[in-house]
Amino acid sequence: MDRNKVIKKIGLIANINKAQAFEVMNKVCDYLDGQNKSYILDEASACLLDRKVENKAYEVLIDFVDVVIVFGGDGTFLKAARTFANSDTPILGINLGQLGFLTDIEINRLEEGLNKLLAGQYIIEERMILEGTVIRKGKVVNQVIAINDLVINKGPFSRIINLESYIDDEYITTYPGDGLIIACPTGSTAYSLSAGGPIVNPKMKSLIITPICPHTLNSRSIVTTEDEEIMVKVDADHNEVMLTVDGQDSFPILSKDIIKINKSELVAKMMKLEGYNFYKILHNRLQ
Amino acid sequence: MDRNKVIKKIGLIANINKAQAFEVMNKVCDYLDGQNKSYILDEASACLLDRKVENKAYEVLIDFVDVVIVFGGDGTFLKAARTFANSDTPILGINLGQLGFLTDIEINRLEEGLNKLLAGQYIIEERMILEGTVIRKGKVVNQVIAINDLVINKGPFSRIINLESYIDDEYITTYPGDGLIIACPTGSTAYSLSAGGPIVNPKMKSLIITPICPHTLNSRSIVTTEDEEIMVKVDADHNEVMLTVDGQDSFPILSKDIIKINKSELVAKMMKLEGYNFYKILHNRLQ
Amino acid sequence: MDRNKVIKKIGLIANINKAQAFEVMNKVCDYLDGQNKSYILDEASACLLDRKVENKAYEVLIDFVDVVIVFGGDGTFLKAARTFANSDTPILGINLGQLGFLTDIEINRLEEGLNKLLAGQYIIEERMILEGTVIRKGKVVNQVIAINDLVINKGPFSRIINLESYIDDEYITTYPGDGLIIACPTGSTAYSLSAGGPIVNPKMKSLIITPICPHTLNSRSIVTTEDEEIMVKVDADHNEVMLTVDGQDSFPILSKDIIKINKSELVAKMMKLEGYNFYKILHNRLQ
Amino acid sequence: MDRNKVIKKIGLIANINKAQAFEVMNKVCDYLDGQNKSYILDEASACLLDRKVENKAYEVLIDFVDVVIVFGGDGTFLKAARTFANSDTPILGINLGQLGFLTDIEINRLEEGLNKLLAGQYIIEERMILEGTVIRKGKVVNQVIAINDLVINKGPFSRIINLESYIDDEYITTYPGDGLIIACPTGSTAYSLSAGGPIVNPKMKSLIITPICPHTLNSRSIVTTEDEEIMVKVDADHNEVMLTVDGQDSFPILSKDIIKINKSELVAKMMKLEGYNFYKILHNRLQ
Repeated sequence: MDRNKVIKKIGLIANINKAQAFEVMNKVCDYLDGQNKSYILDEASACLLDRKVENKAYEVLIDFVDVVIVFGGDGTFLKAARTFANSDTPILGINLGQLGFLTDIEINRLEEGLNKLLAGQYIIEERMILEGTVIRKGKVVNQVIAINDLVINKGPFSRIINLESYIDDEYITTYPGDGLIIACPTGSTAYSLSAGGPIVNPKMKSLIITPICPHTLNSRSIVTTEDEEIMVKVDADHNEVMLTVDGQDSFPILSKDIIKINKSELVAKMMKLEGYNFYKILHNRLQ
Repeated sequence: MDRNKVIKKIGLIANINKAQAFEVMNKVCDYLDGQNKSYILDEASACLLDRKVENKAYEVLIDFVDVVIVFGGDGTFLKAARTFANSDTPILGINLGQLGFLTDIEINRLEEGLNKLLAGQYIIEERMILEGTVIRKGKVVNQVIAINDLVINKGPFSRIINLESYIDDEYITTYPGDGLIIACPTGSTAYSLSAGGPIVNPKMKSLIITPICPHTLNSRSIVTTEDEEIMVKVDADHNEVMLTVDGQDSFPILSKDIIKINKSELVAKMMKLEGYNFYKILHNRLQ
Repeated sequence: MDRNKVIKKIGLIANINKAQAFEVMNKVCDYLDGQNKSYILDEASACLLDRKVENKAYEVLIDFVDVVIVFGGDGTFLKAARTFANSDTPILGINLGQLGFLTDIEINRLEEGLNKLLAGQYIIEERMILEGTVIRKGKVVNQVIAINDLVINKGPFSRIINLESYIDDEYITTYPGDGLIIACPTGSTAYSLSAGGPIVNPKMKSLIITPICPHTLNSRSIVTTEDEEIMVKVDADHNEVMLTVDGQDSFPILSKDIIKINKSELVAKMMKLEGYNFYKILHNRLQ
Repeated sequence: MDRNKVIKKIGLIANINKAQAFEVMNKVCDYLDGQNKSYILDEASACLLDRKVENKAYEVLIDFVDVVIVFGGDGTFLKAARTFANSDTPILGINLGQLGFLTDIEINRLEEGLNKLLAGQYIIEERMILEGTVIRKGKVVNQVIAINDLVINKGPFSRIINLESYIDDEYITTYPGDGLIIACPTGSTAYSLSAGGPIVNPKMKSLIITPICPHTLNSRSIVTTEDEEIMVKVDADHNEVMLTVDGQDSFPILSKDIIKINKSELVAKMMKLEGYNFYKILHNRLQ
């Protein structure tokens, strides 16, 4: 954990589908102007904001700043965290969504949050990232990273799919059902929770395997160590199967494909302002 | 319940994708020839079977016989039960699948089963059927029946869908999640069970509402009386939503569509040979 | 359902451990005095109330009145409903507890409720009652009735108990675990719900079997028809096992005891004022 | 992990309630005699075994040997592991129970296991131990350790108990229900699993909080980091509450007691013979 680095230049990214994001962004620009702090927007946000501002392409924005502030819900944050996973620069989220577990600043405490940021009252929490590799006929055909989860699931027209699952090459079981979620601790409060999985402190390093509507009733979530590899062999002839990343990007999977899931060497750098506590957020979200 | 009607003519329908179905069908034809009982096949089955047999179109076959025997798993049975729901003639299933709850004769007790059938040692169990009506902008755009269940679910690329649910016009809750299963007691041991629902004796008349991976953790299955109507208002902009019948047929649903689900006036007539007991099957399936 | 009978005389029973019950009871007495309606209290309540009132022994009170009003939570109501199960006179509950499913009048709508009662704006809902019979070495040693549920559970010092379970003499499974709940639909929203069971409309006639922390993970709630008998054989050497009625009365069970549970011939008569709707209460309770 | 230490002297402990334990113990004595290895029994086992053997008091036996072999189920193993938690000498279990997760040698592969032991083909796996502290009116009144779990639960006559729960002094929620399980990863496959908790690789260091039949339906298991402290404030007037250690020892808890649960500084040393794999055992147990 890195404390107290002075923030000189700030990147700003909005969810371009939310009008509210631009309202709040405008306020933040006003605030930063008042503090004589410079800031850069990504091109799309800059294009939609009603003022002239410096901008860079989304993909490279992070290279020019000390922190990227994201205006949106968990979805906007997840996309940025995957895009910027290679950078050492942290991301901070301003919550415009409903039930943010990832974003840190609530809209009604905006100025308080920005004050903390500029005063260096923050820590950078490093979160584990998942890596998924799709192997078809012996060849790697896709490689993805996920902040929350990788989901292997069937299409809506499909019947049961069978997922033969291994941990470190040891056969566990074959899950017949709608699919399988492999989540990071960060993602334990997202889809995995809906499917019956446990809440795992995001500081933990582990992989959580949660079956979706398994037709064998004795299936439960499994929490592995961080260095174990999960391997899933897909058996789903005549079915539509997808690999979905953080609930956002989907890739078609063929029967007989093998999917390997590990801890990535990358880590997500999430800026957390003073006063942040996972269990406090959990308490609020569960009420 | 109707006992002891003499079976004169028998309809035979096979799952045309299963080679084993035709093997077994051949044996049954030999058996019926030996007993001087006449039988008719549906056209597709007749076409694939290696002997010359009388045949009729699938849809009308039931009108010419005293019972239809179905060779396949629960899927083959479900399709026949929906197709023949208007007829008073019962259906009997020979199980070629893995975990049949609907089929009655196990393959290794074939002759014993056929003997019972011809000896009139059977009852006809009447099972409740579901009716689903899709209303779009005030107009009925689709009407379906289901033996097991009607499922409103999201596509694989979709995000959470919100399903505002009512029973007899009383608002219950809005389920955010992957979807909602409305099952008959007959279907309580199918998809609803995988999603956490209870096992309901198929003799019961009731509707079972089971949410799929609900994002609100306090959701549970609800068992209503047979005369209550379930109404679901779909809120799922920019999402792909489907209404799926018995896991077999799917229809697209638009945001703002209203789906009403009731007990149908039709009933499924399932022939059960002497010795049948739901709890015995349950015991075997759960082991 | 019986409508519009004129209420002439009213019985009043309070939870004697709740000071608030007597406060509210006093208000109701004032109201009834104002309406020139006569009322009788049970002896214990009369003794604790600060005014001179006619009274009768708890057990016989119902024989002198047209309705018994109970002041307390679901517990107070359950005790009265069991005690008065033989009577045709209905019971009405005033909710002083937290999450009443059985009581009908909320404290903040007291006068509105009493007006409806005296105006005959009510129905009498008949609810199924459970009957439990304990058989030891071939002899009936105990017979109980329950409004919500009968629970066979282990003591806190005990290890796993094994409960061999049958429905209509057909063996289902042996549940190893903490115990088994057999609930009426009325009790489906009580302990059974906490243990993972479904919500069942209390108008239904059925028995709900829900295992408590079963060590076999494939256990689910089973909903039977009203005329089926559940039989449980207890195997729990060196263990403390109890049969608990509505979470209130407990009786020791010995290993090898057999417990049979059926629908009782008795029914609970619950008065429901106009506007009552089970799903409305469910909606409120689940929020 | 410590490999290949030569085993010179062996301690043997049997579950004195199992006749089979002494049968197997006799065979092991024969085997060890044949290998010229010396062994010592605990006093009770020695007293019940049909041969003259060296013996020591149970509590100190471990000080005289290089490994203690336990003959019994998981229960016998748990008691030994707690008793010997202060020692560096490992424990090895021979499984006479049904579903051993802790014992390593299956009865039908006894000689193979003993050969591995004497050939030094083993590792010593260090497992986390839980420490529980009961505080009453500001004073520590009890301190216990657990290998599997610490359970705060209500007695069979009791009504709902309320458990106000904190992690590192941050309030999480108040669980109303039957109680709360706090498990080690080792105990995740025991009682916590029955109550709906996840399976956690026992190599992990973490605490798992699982509510028992919670009356708030939104309760889920929480997996914390190893260095977090769980604190539970008990609110259970007029109720019988117990703290139970590994399902074996129980201590009465009073209303207003505070229970703190941490990772102990002690670790359990479990000997695992070559070929041991947690997931292989899990696969076998779940089938």
